[in-house]
Amino acid sequence: MSKAAQSRGSLYDHVYVVIMAGGSGTRFWPLSRRKKPKQLLGLFGGSTLLEQTVDRVKGIVPPERIYVFANSMVRAQMVRLLPGIPERQIVAEPAQRNTAPTVGLAANEILSRDPDGIMAILPADHVIQKPGAFREALKAGCRWATTEGRSVILGIQPTGPETGYGYIRLGGPAINAGREKIYRVENFTEKPALAAARKYVASKRYLWNAGMFIWRASTLLANLRKFQPAMAEGLDRIAAAGGIDNLRALKRLFPQLEKISIDYALMERIDGVSAVAADIGWSDVGSWAVAYDLSSKDADGNVRPENSICLDSKGNMLVGGRKHLVTIGVENLVIVDTGDALLVCARDQSQKVGKAVQELERLGKKNLL
Amino acid sequence: MSKAAQSRGSLYDHVYVVIMAGGSGTRFWPLSRRKKPKQLLGLFGGSTLLEQTVDRVKGIVPPERIYVFANSMVRAQMVRLLPGIPERQIVAEPAQRNTAPTVGLAANEILSRDPDGIMAILPADHVIQKPGAFREALKAGCRWATTEGRSVILGIQPTGPETGYGYIRLGGPAINAGREKIYRVENFTEKPALAAARKYVASKRYLWNAGMFIWRASTLLANLRKFQPAMAEGLDRIAAAGGIDNLRALKRLFPQLEKISIDYALMERIDGVSAVAADIGWSDVGSWAVAYDLSSKDADGNVRPENSICLDSKGNMLVGGRKHLVTIGVENLVIVDTGDALLVCARDQSQKVGKAVQELERLGKKNLL
Repeated sequence: MSKAAQSRGSLYDHVYVVIMAGGSGTRFWPLSRRKKPKQLLGLFGGSTLLEQTVDRVKGIVPPERIYVFANSMVRAQMVRLLPGIPERQIVAEPAQRNTAPTVGLAANEILSRDPDGIMAILPADHVIQKPGAFREALKAGCRWATTEGRSVILGIQPTGPETGYGYIRLGGPAINAGREKIYRVENFTEKPALAAARKYVASKRYLWNAGMFIWRASTLLANLRKFQPAMAEGLDRIAAAGGIDNLRALKRLFPQLEKISIDYALMERIDGVSAVAADIGWSDVGSWAVAYDLSSKDADGNVRPENSICLDSKGNMLVGGRKHLVTIGVENLVIVDTGDALLVCARDQSQKVGKAVQELERLGKKNLL
Repeated sequence: MSKAAQSRGSLYDHVYVVIMAGGSGTRFWPLSRRKKPKQLLGLFGGSTLLEQTVDRVKGIVPPERIYVFANSMVRAQMVRLLPGIPERQIVAEPAQRNTAPTVGLAANEILSRDPDGIMAILPADHVIQKPGAFREALKAGCRWATTEGRSVILGIQPTGPETGYGYIRLGGPAINAGREKIYRVENFTEKPALAAARKYVASKRYLWNAGMFIWRASTLLANLRKFQPAMAEGLDRIAAAGGIDNLRALKRLFPQLEKISIDYALMERIDGVSAVAADIGWSDVGSWAVAYDLSSKDADGNVRPENSICLDSKGNMLVGGRKHLVTIGVENLVIVDTGDALLVCARDQSQKVGKAVQELERLGKKNLL
């Protein structure tokens, strides 16, 4: 950290939050649509997951240092939803190029504002049930990235042998970590088989990779120049043309960048990555079944709106608007009613919702996607 | 039969059909409502059960000799639905007094048109899958009531030990029945226990009482005078005031008549009742489960509209409007979507739909009833 920076008030004055809000999943169909992806749903606690992501960093990072990267179909909605964030910082990606190009674009933008800028990459569509613990982990990661100049990943302490996540293998505690739960990262493992996942969890040497990274913008760009020189060059051209403020150049140049995740592009290649072990009640809410688990239930284990009647029914999740929903003698279903579509799905098969959406696509039902 | 009547062309020139369309069941909620009872649903074959009831007697009885008795909430709909039937013959009952008062009212009306009138009482909300066989049974019953002056009941040959129906115990074949399946009725039994129902069916001496009766109007009224003198007197007062054409008198006098079924009031009291054994593919369609049984299914046993997708789903009944219905991994459900309500019900528990409607009533949700 430069002396000028250290002379300021807060340790976190150089921290910028980059919210990755470009996701366009189908797993919450029919509630989620192309124009209403998961991060714009108010499934948990009323406000959208995107708003909750912004709210969680309040007190550490002010809105002026928050960026949101979205797809162009939903940017306008996000601008309306986040009036505190300067409009130019809610950026429509001209194309979906996975995470690395977006992170690089953000890094150049932040570096142009602050040579000492620290960027925290956070996904927009996760649930974090312990926001206090999250803030502590984020702050620890920011301190580590600031004072040690490390690439930091916030890793999630596993709660079970999930096979759907990437795992981070830890070495010993990081030098100088003191009482912080900061470890050296040995390597990254993509989605493992169940047996391997069981071993990982039992060993207590693994964390889940939740896509939350922290590093100095300058460090990230230096690494990008080393490991992804073509991308770094492309990003330089975008920066020279005006960065996020020159939409025309962005539209022309951004789609030329390699479509690759920041994990593959950098994280798995560079040495000296550190991980903060975060016990923050995290979920990526990957299906209706997970949404059920995260929701509050009545005495029969039903998640349901007020205007519903559940007779002899247990373990169901009912989602609807003003319509009156009635169930009789059914168990463990997900029932989601929207104006134009209805889903009735066995809760333990909600991972197949995407298949139904593919089928709608095949049938040309564009207005339902 | 009088000589004048015999000189006319058809044996059935004196037959009048009285369709009992006053039912207001809740068992097909949310499709059926107070203003759209079962007889006005187009669940089977497009046209409503009421229209099908009228269509079935075509070729035997012309519309000018058909009467429909309905409740006042739905009479106007029925008038629109049945343009062939003279409007005055679609009668709004001023109160629900069960079947006997309505049958008596109809008898007086018919007698005033035709001293030799034969009346066939038919429910409006049943399914009959063999209309040809039904017509033959109806004609046999009409002939029997005409030439023998009997009270005739069309009884259904049981297809299983149903405990929800009344049973008719048969004596031997009626004298002069010839090759017709006409029997003497020994007695009526209300809904039996399962063991008794099994015995009844095995004995082959029982028919189901489906509420279809045929008799001379004059015979019926004579019996009414004998067994229900107060009701007969009340009906006389209504007739003197103008019968079905004096709505004001009807509104005042009709509700004073005893609320009693024609079965209790007469059928079980009079001697010499005959039964025609009818094998007509009959169902009273008492629940969504029965509606499922009666409907055509796809290869996976799903009853479903075109704009639906059933993934790994079997044995479901999907009913909806323009909305796209999607099921995943569910079996044996009834799913009914209307603009304002949605029912998801285990098929084998669809007899509980009425309970849900009671609950809506208790909650004061009048617009959903």
